[in-house]
Amino acid sequence: MTSLKEELQHKINLKTKPLGALGQLEEIALQLGMIQNTLSPKLKNPSLIVFAADHGIADAGVSPYPKEVTWQMVMNFCGNGASINVFCKQNGIGLKVVDAGVDYDFPAELPVINAKVARGTKNMLNEPAMTSDECRLAMQRGTELVQKEAGSGCNTIGFGEMGIGNTSASSLLMHRFLNLPIEECTGKGAGMEGEQLDYKTSVLKEVSEKYAPQMPEETLATFGGLEIAMMVGAILEARKLNMVVLIDGFIATAATLTAIQFDESVRDNCIFCHASEEKGHQLMLDQLQAKPVLSLGMRLGEGSGAAVAYPVIKAAATFLNEMASFEEAGVSNKEESSEVQRL
Amino acid sequence: MTSLKEELQHKINLKTKPLGALGQLEEIALQLGMIQNTLSPKLKNPSLIVFAADHGIADAGVSPYPKEVTWQMVMNFCGNGASINVFCKQNGIGLKVVDAGVDYDFPAELPVINAKVARGTKNMLNEPAMTSDECRLAMQRGTELVQKEAGSGCNTIGFGEMGIGNTSASSLLMHRFLNLPIEECTGKGAGMEGEQLDYKTSVLKEVSEKYAPQMPEETLATFGGLEIAMMVGAILEARKLNMVVLIDGFIATAATLTAIQFDESVRDNCIFCHASEEKGHQLMLDQLQAKPVLSLGMRLGEGSGAAVAYPVIKAAATFLNEMASFEEAGVSNKEESSEVQRL
Repeated sequence: MTSLKEELQHKINLKTKPLGALGQLEEIALQLGMIQNTLSPKLKNPSLIVFAADHGIADAGVSPYPKEVTWQMVMNFCGNGASINVFCKQNGIGLKVVDAGVDYDFPAELPVINAKVARGTKNMLNEPAMTSDECRLAMQRGTELVQKEAGSGCNTIGFGEMGIGNTSASSLLMHRFLNLPIEECTGKGAGMEGEQLDYKTSVLKEVSEKYAPQMPEETLATFGGLEIAMMVGAILEARKLNMVVLIDGFIATAATLTAIQFDESVRDNCIFCHASEEKGHQLMLDQLQAKPVLSLGMRLGEGSGAAVAYPVIKAAATFLNEMASFEEAGVSNKEESSEVQRL
Repeated sequence: MTSLKEELQHKINLKTKPLGALGQLEEIALQLGMIQNTLSPKLKNPSLIVFAADHGIADAGVSPYPKEVTWQMVMNFCGNGASINVFCKQNGIGLKVVDAGVDYDFPAELPVINAKVARGTKNMLNEPAMTSDECRLAMQRGTELVQKEAGSGCNTIGFGEMGIGNTSASSLLMHRFLNLPIEECTGKGAGMEGEQLDYKTSVLKEVSEKYAPQMPEETLATFGGLEIAMMVGAILEARKLNMVVLIDGFIATAATLTAIQFDESVRDNCIFCHASEEKGHQLMLDQLQAKPVLSLGMRLGEGSGAAVAYPVIKAAATFLNEMASFEEAGVSNKEESSEVQRL
């Protein structure tokens, strides 16, 4: 019996184009078919959730921006002024903004989903970022948010984040889960360069040496963030619901890496949308054997890479569903026409 | 006085994002503003013209597909079954199919623009591909086609091609204009591998040694194709009309390289949409100091790379026009907040 994978590959190969000529789009088309268990995958009601939260470690000066930028950027999301707003709007992606743990009280009339677990994490220099209850609650709320999206007909979901200090949390998760030196996992984030980057690295080293968590959940609670834990829960649930999962840059990939510690199979549903300029991201992608869709040197977060990559990913479903086969189009295929070859 | 370039860069820098965090999208935004001479560039009525023509050199067996695939694929374009159809439709790009010189009589009722200069080029193994009159006429028709598009409100134009044998013509143009060995310029095209590729290379070497054209137009006439010459004329005119020019893969880049021999300034208007898997393309991009938008391992032609890249290019205009500045959004900028730094 022919497997779905073989049938998909056969369908791709018979499209009116040289064999393999659509490159990575063919690989994505195959992945979409496998995720949706069909020869005709469709991306329906694409949605992007931005999880926002504050980080205690920001008090240590690991970002060039002050902590209040987290809530200010959430306000910017509400005013449709951020990059994720304009990219989602351009590409017909529904945008949800979630307060996972911002140290600010948003007016109730704003379009912010209140899933606040705490007013930011603790400073990891002093104590674990989250209690295990906080971490579990954040993951649970991520699960519920994805269930709600799926319930409204969405089968393609991207995740973004906003949180001053969250590249630090992500670097620590990467460092622990991949067993790599902290230096290889730490980049400039929103703009720490030269001595500032050395300082950030030294802070993260100090944090790392302080704790020896064993299980994935403990590691996530110790070094993660509320928005990251919520994203981990969301990714795990999206996998369970057979959704196409659009992974953004450094922080979203760290969340994916974390989710994989809980359930290895989530990797199958993830499309890695872009290679961030953030140091460590390429290394993480390599470890995940992920070929990113875009390499535009972006390093903005918010899910911006996922939103920009979406139409490219959609193109994979488009050609698989809409292109004619050689037979349908009456075009001579390579094999059929071997008698006209001069070789 | 501040130059437009400085003003554009300033506008980009004040958007609510870390400096440079949108990477290549920022470079594209700058280029769009410079092409349109404005701080608010807009991509209007995007259009893609596919030029189709036959090549005498195909009789030498330089493609794995028979010559009739050229007209058959034009019929496929008319039936909306080719990759360029489905990608243009997805991304709201108007598609025009032009018979630049196909060896076939298309029924008049088909949506094919008849700009046929001849029923294909001559076999370069025996005589130059085109007479200088044919070459000039093809370029002239390319000019007129672009004028017509511009007249209907299009300011963003992509070019694609269909023509069995046209990677051979493009390799020869690249070889001549860049003074590179033919081996470095010759790739598998629609699927010539191993001994077949060696054979293709040997045919092109034989052709190259036969002629010593001096001026760009003579080189184009000797080695080019009717669809390539038409594209050269089209690119030159699009530059004159300050249009954004979307350059596809290997063949379109060879046409751009040719156009540059006539008018160096066309380079300013060109956005190189993707890095083709076709051997030689990356080398050509390097020589043109072009950073392609996508690198998806595609090698299909038809303008497919340009059509898939379009929404990514549009994202550059989108963020420049629609994102809020730090001031507009009330978000603390890095510089303003230096007092909160711990370093």
